Amino acid sequence: MSGYFITFEGGEGAGKTSVLRSTEKKLQELGYDVLSTREPGGIDIAEKIREIILNPEHKEMDGRTEALLYAAARRQHLVEKVLPALNEGKIILCDRFIDSSLAYQGYARGLGMDEVFAINQFAIQDSMPNLTLFFNIEPKKGLDRIMVNKDRERNRLDLEKMKFHEDVYEAYQQLIERFPDRFRVIDADQTIEEVEQETLEMVLQFLNKTNS
Amino acid sequence: MSGYFITFEGGEGAGKTSVLRSTEKKLQELGYDVLSTREPGGIDIAEKIREIILNPEHKEMDGRTEALLYAAARRQHLVEKVLPALNEGKIILCDRFIDSSLAYQGYARGLGMDEVFAINQFAIQDSMPNLTLFFNIEPKKGLDRIMVNKDRERNRLDLEKMKFHEDVYEAYQQLIERFPDRFRVIDADQTIEEVEQETLEMVLQFLNKTNS
Repeated sequence: MSGYFITFEGGEGAGKTSVLRSTEKKLQELGYDVLSTREPGGIDIAEKIREIILNPEHKEMDGRTEALLYAAARRQHLVEKVLPALNEGKIILCDRFIDSSLAYQGYARGLGMDEVFAINQFAIQDSMPNLTLFFNIEPKKGLDRIMVNKDRERNRLDLEKMKFHEDVYEAYQQLIERFPDRFRVIDADQTIEEVEQETLEMVLQFLNKTNS
Repeated sequence: MSGYFITFEGGEGAGKTSVLRSTEKKLQELGYDVLSTREPGGIDIAEKIREIILNPEHKEMDGRTEALLYAAARRQHLVEKVLPALNEGKIILCDRFIDSSLAYQGYARGLGMDEVFAINQFAIQDSMPNLTLFFNIEPKKGLDRIMVNKDRERNRLDLEKMKFHEDVYEAYQQLIERFPDRFRVIDADQTIEEVEQETLEMVLQFLNKTNS
């Protein structure tokens, strides 16, 4: 393993996906060999697993079945795409990874963080990210951003969902405490340019520190 | 939970599948409410998961992905088919369950019995079988039975596979030691009628004991 595995995490509307794209571009301009990806990432088996998870006909899908399927898709994406790129010395920027399962399924859906961690440990073995960036924004503000974008009014369902997004946020706070060496918190409640700048600095600082 | 969950386990050619069918029939004749099943058992989501596992195009399938997919299919089959029947007080006869994953993937494929047990515990929670029948026959004899049936000669590949089937057998021996209360060993190296008779007696003895 000579590359670096960097994951981008956060709730809805934190802007991590677009910041990931700009970070990839800027790192490439600086001469770094970068691969950006997200599960299932075009991996045939992982795509087929995702189809089962996302199929709206599968109303009878159990939460634990779903968590196992996410872990299975994660494993295959890791083995086929992330690990080969790491072995080639690339910097991998991955949009969501194990922490999303811990926050969304383990905590917010109530399956238990430790239990969801156990099946994900089976899936990823010792391939934990070298660095995880958490894009920090209050859940309400993040959702407001999405809603403005989608030009839709806040409805009763959205309000009910607030509790869920607050739980996701709380879960990430616990993960940051649990993995202080791996996590770095980015203030996502700034202009997109400021978030992009802070992210690039954080990544370069990490690369310089680990390379020195 | 008022029913009983009985699983049938063993290597290839142990005869468990046909004995399961005859046991179901005889128990029904004695007035018991019986459901016989095997994963994926006609459960839509579990069937779709199995299709991914068994698709011969998926040569890049990783062993851990496969184990997670088996656990996911197991979970859904359990939740949709086994647990409702147990709640109705039925006797469930299930052809292979958690022990097959422990023996085949955990031990013989080398993923580790404890690790495969961990993801299966996540899948089944506290729904361990009440009784597990192991159909005991030397791996070589079991395979010979299958080969006679299929009228094919033993080839080099079959011989190479012997080691695998011996590993599966060894794994079951370890499981029997580990779960002495749950496992009962049936001598499968007898005529089919004798195996059927021994199985029925074992099941009735279990039902009488647990009902008294």
